[in-house]
Amino acid sequence: MRTRAAVALKAGQPLEVMEVNLEGPKAGEVLVEIKATGLCHTDEFTRSGDDPEGAFPAILGHEGAGVVLEVGEGVTSLKPGDHVIPLYTPECRECDYCLNPKTNLCQKIRTTQGAGVMPDGTSRFSMLDGTPILHYMGCSTFANHTVLPEIALAKVRDDAPFDKICYIGCGVTTGIGAVINTAKVEYGSRAIVFGLGGIGLNVIQGLRMAGAAQIVGVDINPSKVEMGKRFGMTDFVNPKEVKGDLVGHLVELTGGGADYTFDATGNVNVMRTALESAHKGWGESIIIGVAPAGAEITTRPFQLVTGRSWRGTAFGGARGRTDVPKIVDWYMQGKIEIDPMITHTMPLEDINKGFDLMHKGESIRGVVIY
Amino acid sequence: MRTRAAVALKAGQPLEVMEVNLEGPKAGEVLVEIKATGLCHTDEFTRSGDDPEGAFPAILGHEGAGVVLEVGEGVTSLKPGDHVIPLYTPECRECDYCLNPKTNLCQKIRTTQGAGVMPDGTSRFSMLDGTPILHYMGCSTFANHTVLPEIALAKVRDDAPFDKICYIGCGVTTGIGAVINTAKVEYGSRAIVFGLGGIGLNVIQGLRMAGAAQIVGVDINPSKVEMGKRFGMTDFVNPKEVKGDLVGHLVELTGGGADYTFDATGNVNVMRTALESAHKGWGESIIIGVAPAGAEITTRPFQLVTGRSWRGTAFGGARGRTDVPKIVDWYMQGKIEIDPMITHTMPLEDINKGFDLMHKGESIRGVVIY
Repeated sequence: MRTRAAVALKAGQPLEVMEVNLEGPKAGEVLVEIKATGLCHTDEFTRSGDDPEGAFPAILGHEGAGVVLEVGEGVTSLKPGDHVIPLYTPECRECDYCLNPKTNLCQKIRTTQGAGVMPDGTSRFSMLDGTPILHYMGCSTFANHTVLPEIALAKVRDDAPFDKICYIGCGVTTGIGAVINTAKVEYGSRAIVFGLGGIGLNVIQGLRMAGAAQIVGVDINPSKVEMGKRFGMTDFVNPKEVKGDLVGHLVELTGGGADYTFDATGNVNVMRTALESAHKGWGESIIIGVAPAGAEITTRPFQLVTGRSWRGTAFGGARGRTDVPKIVDWYMQGKIEIDPMITHTMPLEDINKGFDLMHKGESIRGVVIY
Repeated sequence: MRTRAAVALKAGQPLEVMEVNLEGPKAGEVLVEIKATGLCHTDEFTRSGDDPEGAFPAILGHEGAGVVLEVGEGVTSLKPGDHVIPLYTPECRECDYCLNPKTNLCQKIRTTQGAGVMPDGTSRFSMLDGTPILHYMGCSTFANHTVLPEIALAKVRDDAPFDKICYIGCGVTTGIGAVINTAKVEYGSRAIVFGLGGIGLNVIQGLRMAGAAQIVGVDINPSKVEMGKRFGMTDFVNPKEVKGDLVGHLVELTGGGADYTFDATGNVNVMRTALESAHKGWGESIIIGVAPAGAEITTRPFQLVTGRSWRGTAFGGARGRTDVPKIVDWYMQGKIEIDPMITHTMPLEDINKGFDLMHKGESIRGVVIY
């Protein structure tokens, strides 16, 4: 079949919207009509050429929602008409990782996914001249239709709006999951969130859900205050306005350091500040942000020996097929908010304008509606 | 009263054994006759002048065992004749840290202890000419008699030999506790221990107690193999004999990385190797060793984002008054071994020879018997 897609032909170039060929699903695969997709910094990281593992041409996009059109041989958990969210972290429920309750990093299709192909080693996408186009993060939601492995699709309820729940495919789950699944924040905890973008705001609402007593937001952009407060932020700190040592200021503000700190910036210097503003004895610091290639984190080991823990999270520690449907329920039940974070919507043709808004810091989340 | 002590008069000089004055216990304090004390690398770190917080003159030593001679006003948990182990990490059972089950770092007397004085701000020790001598880590077990706060003494059974259980005052508890209290290693885990000195061997026997399925010891000194095996090591790796990447070798040996890794070297490069040889998704790396002043640990944040945790431990996460008596019981019940690690004993007069043996790598633990 043919479908429309925004194709990343070369690193650093704008995406090009064009017709492409899409083969039908092979065994264990599913054809999905994408109804909406968010634009995430990770897509931009790859588009820009900064991602050392980026390969082209590719169809980017990993934060989508849609409807199953057709299932391949052997697919049992999905049928045409099911509403689904693509999972860049799949859940096979049978690899060593899925069977270990300490991790969500299913490894079943990691190698082929990383190489931009389906588990059989080939791509379903091609140019009209036959040139193969790579998949991206196993999702490629910047195409109106895409093919995914069955284990990379979460079945969700039919009454949830695609243009909102697509955000659960990455940002919402990453932020809330970092709190609920990775840190397992207890009621009454004090927390600091570094970076009040699309991930940071979801960390904040995750902290509100978990009953955190103090939620400090840190950002160099004071325009973030209003949204931060809307989602549960209790205190705001602008590092540019702090005289003296930022760590000392945050430790004092949180009565000795925070029980949990979260980096949602991807800046390795901020990651250090996050660790060191965690409470002596028991503070945990969780890295969410993706750092530039080659960047390294550093601290004195004394920070850890005196009881701080340094950890990280990917996809919020969520097991997608199990946890994503629950988060969709939370949204539909009003336990979490998504609508105010979807600041811009656009047709596929305007996808590059969406990335422009991201760069200008004008959008929290831009969403393409097909 | 007067007692004999090995006094560190100046940084970098040998200890001098001499008569010193010792005032009796004030309110909340206890006079203890030290019967035996181990020589630990931390004492040597301070004696040598490498410890930036070291202050002189001081009576070092923090790994002792002895008998209560006299108690000050208000002391209720101890009486003359009780056998005790001094605790450089006290347990007041009423500060915010003692009341938080996530930490053992009682802060009740931290400031004065760090300053080398008793909680009232003064020292009990002085030269015969009246010059005050500082306490050290709140213990000063290189004196035949010493004064400690009640909260810094663990009461232990009367039938345990002082010249063995003194080692529980630091090395044994630090190593075994890192496994039991900090990492909480599960039965069947795979583990790697970097550094097979006095701490590393205790990590190994802690892992054996916890039922670890694979215990890999890593050391550049092949003479450590025999002792390592005796305490439960299942595999030995000499980094000097590994061709290519040490992390890759260890990951392969442990079937994908260890569930738990422990640094008992204090070398920040080894700490990085320890983290990176922990299993993707769930591996935890525990820093035990004390790094040189100013040294920093470094890694790519990707190591944490993909599920590894970086943590540390002090005094093996043990709450001394609660846990140390249990470890003494384990020793008396034959659940742990100490005797083969006490490779040298000596009178106080020969304490400097004990440090020479430590430097030459000839001793695992040297113990002064008064």
